[in-house]
Amino acid sequence: MTQKIFIIGAGRSASSLIKYLINVSVKNNFELTIGDKDVSLVKDKIDGHKCASAIQFDVQNEAQRISEIKNADIVISMLPASLHFIVALDCLKYKKNLVTASYVSKDIQSLNDQAQKQGIILLNEIGLDPGIDHMSAMKVIDDIKNKGGVIKSFKSYCGGLVAPDYDTNPWNYKFTWNPRNVVLAGQGTAQYIDSGKYKYIPYGQLFKRTDTVNVLNYGQFEAYANRDSLSYREVYKLNDIPTLFRGTLRKPGYSEAWDLFVQMGMTDDSYEVDVSGMNYSDFFNSFIDLRNRDIKSYLKSHFRVSDDVISKVEWLGFFNQINLAIDKGTPAQILQKILESKWLLKKEDKDMIVMQHQFIYEIDGKERELHSSFVLLGEDQTYTGMAKTVGLPVGIATKLILNGEIKSTGVRVPVSKEIYKPVLEELEQYGIRFIEEEIR
Amino acid sequence: MTQKIFIIGAGRSASSLIKYLINVSVKNNFELTIGDKDVSLVKDKIDGHKCASAIQFDVQNEAQRISEIKNADIVISMLPASLHFIVALDCLKYKKNLVTASYVSKDIQSLNDQAQKQGIILLNEIGLDPGIDHMSAMKVIDDIKNKGGVIKSFKSYCGGLVAPDYDTNPWNYKFTWNPRNVVLAGQGTAQYIDSGKYKYIPYGQLFKRTDTVNVLNYGQFEAYANRDSLSYREVYKLNDIPTLFRGTLRKPGYSEAWDLFVQMGMTDDSYEVDVSGMNYSDFFNSFIDLRNRDIKSYLKSHFRVSDDVISKVEWLGFFNQINLAIDKGTPAQILQKILESKWLLKKEDKDMIVMQHQFIYEIDGKERELHSSFVLLGEDQTYTGMAKTVGLPVGIATKLILNGEIKSTGVRVPVSKEIYKPVLEELEQYGIRFIEEEIR
Repeated sequence: MTQKIFIIGAGRSASSLIKYLINVSVKNNFELTIGDKDVSLVKDKIDGHKCASAIQFDVQNEAQRISEIKNADIVISMLPASLHFIVALDCLKYKKNLVTASYVSKDIQSLNDQAQKQGIILLNEIGLDPGIDHMSAMKVIDDIKNKGGVIKSFKSYCGGLVAPDYDTNPWNYKFTWNPRNVVLAGQGTAQYIDSGKYKYIPYGQLFKRTDTVNVLNYGQFEAYANRDSLSYREVYKLNDIPTLFRGTLRKPGYSEAWDLFVQMGMTDDSYEVDVSGMNYSDFFNSFIDLRNRDIKSYLKSHFRVSDDVISKVEWLGFFNQINLAIDKGTPAQILQKILESKWLLKKEDKDMIVMQHQFIYEIDGKERELHSSFVLLGEDQTYTGMAKTVGLPVGIATKLILNGEIKSTGVRVPVSKEIYKPVLEELEQYGIRFIEEEIR
Repeated sequence: MTQKIFIIGAGRSASSLIKYLINVSVKNNFELTIGDKDVSLVKDKIDGHKCASAIQFDVQNEAQRISEIKNADIVISMLPASLHFIVALDCLKYKKNLVTASYVSKDIQSLNDQAQKQGIILLNEIGLDPGIDHMSAMKVIDDIKNKGGVIKSFKSYCGGLVAPDYDTNPWNYKFTWNPRNVVLAGQGTAQYIDSGKYKYIPYGQLFKRTDTVNVLNYGQFEAYANRDSLSYREVYKLNDIPTLFRGTLRKPGYSEAWDLFVQMGMTDDSYEVDVSGMNYSDFFNSFIDLRNRDIKSYLKSHFRVSDDVISKVEWLGFFNQINLAIDKGTPAQILQKILESKWLLKKEDKDMIVMQHQFIYEIDGKERELHSSFVLLGEDQTYTGMAKTVGLPVGIATKLILNGEIKSTGVRVPVSKEIYKPVLEELEQYGIRFIEEEIR
């Protein structure tokens, strides 16, 4: 019997998802309908395959939304997270399963009982981070617990970067994902637990308190703390773990330089500045009290930054009289525009996804350390590492739900063996393979 | 004919106001009604005077509010700023003048046309800061403009501090006003203009970028920027001024030490921490990554603070195992409780108000600099410098409105000569006297 999959949203992150589902459609007798406000985005991605049809779709159009959801067996929402809820309500009403790669919002969580009653699954957080991180961590956590180990420390790192061969600028960074999220990253307070003590890192300290992480043969990275590590104790059933930390990976040196922007207030998104007629240097200098001093020596003495930071800032053009060609915006918006012109991923560039889990556990009276890591390089600008690691788990889970291998109902994230085992196994065929290293 | 004044709120800041109005009541034939939720507060302040009566008053009680306002000729609201609007609406309805020491909110501003139609004044910002700052600045600005000068730079500083003889702790600071405002001071971004260029100071730089200010024979102070200097260009009709800066005064060394709390995230009011069973040192250490290092050398190397900062922090007890005796709160709330126990103004202590305006202007082709300053010490714990400088201008303006000397209508702040001239003149009788110094 043909089963119908309705995918909402055909943006950048949907390319690998669509390709995967088209590939498995003949064997599994799937029919895809893919809707986006911009139907040309869908047509590009379908590339003439017969099992898939493209439609112009507006999620706010209630009649169209209901009609398409009623017509499907399962819905995949690749929309921005805030739009999942209205889709989920219709899925509930018409008893359709739903898959998303987004964090479970409070709204979505509130549908758990109803979803269980209706016998459907609302599966979320099944992309990369959240997604592959949950699944790969839970696999190791369950393994250690099953053999009688007690986990003392769990640190988990993930980053989307540019692949080494295309890493050609002094920041060792290019935008491989939403630039706005990169510019605003870390605002607020990061919370984690270390040796049983709660720790709080304010934004102004975040990029000063980095860890060093070595991943397989990809060398050294540095990691700054994610905002929320504490809630993962419950998600991973590690309620009494003394140390739990999650961080974001960058290449060494990035954080010290980025911290200068943070300290200067250039990442602030809370107020607008008038920059009409200004150049890069004017904009930069509005955040410091330079007077007639030399800019480089001022930065070195006031912010105590290294020569390396000075070079990175200079490379971006902030000491030059380049016209900004912007009238106004928040400091963060203006900084983003400047960075987009310099950190652009070029056509021939490839991205890289890096993830590492570090576990310390006790077993038979001994302390052991285990690292579980994977690195994936993108294929090209369409099938990026990011698109693959977000889209493939969504696609695989969708197939598993339709085939009846995933039987859970309610609001779920992929932390149960029923979900993570088959998804991780199939991901290996696509090069997403975790390598476990016994450190001690 | 007897004129009736209704004062709402008899808290700390109303003591000098009430004393002043009682004193002038016989001569002016005023009758005072003073309402507060806590009627005992009122009775203490009235001290048996016959021209004043105390009532238990709840501003949210509509019937009582209308009845008291209808019965008055003028209303003074010493309530928290957010409660002025409902009072103002009734004042409009029953054609009663209103005086407050608070900033004009958007809501209040929206009543301007109606107030003018009704022929009443809603006079705001007539306390210390805002209030005396407006009046004393406008006097000098008008003087300079009248003799043909052009103002190039206006810097204005104000602070509420402890009087020198009672300045007995290493911070040279005690709480003489709302402690919460002191702990949260400066959050956001300070904006000012310097030599025609907009300048932005993020919170993390605020206490590092201080000015040094000398006031009369009270020695040196340091000043950090207020959030909003730019809007004063319009208020003071200095739209094209190249430099305008407003700042808050502290004794030298305060800002460097306070900045440590800012950098550590201890002034954050946006999330709660669980501190049950913790001591001062545990709480302090949850904001740093100390590991097994010595706390003093860690602070000196990581935050690059001086020995002086270390002594100040040590004096507060943060290196000790003193029990916090708090269960939870935001970092700012917990810090505030700790500071309240150490920075308490003791019974015999007196406070001090310091204000200085610095003008640079051009006249006859020459550049001149003029400073206008005042310092006032409090009398005791009731008639503090703060209570006098907030309450006396409110009281004087109320008298002037009732006597017909202030004739303006609409929503007003005291920047016109009609208001500032008689108020400043009478303030001199109470020791609030500006001293002008021609610097060059």
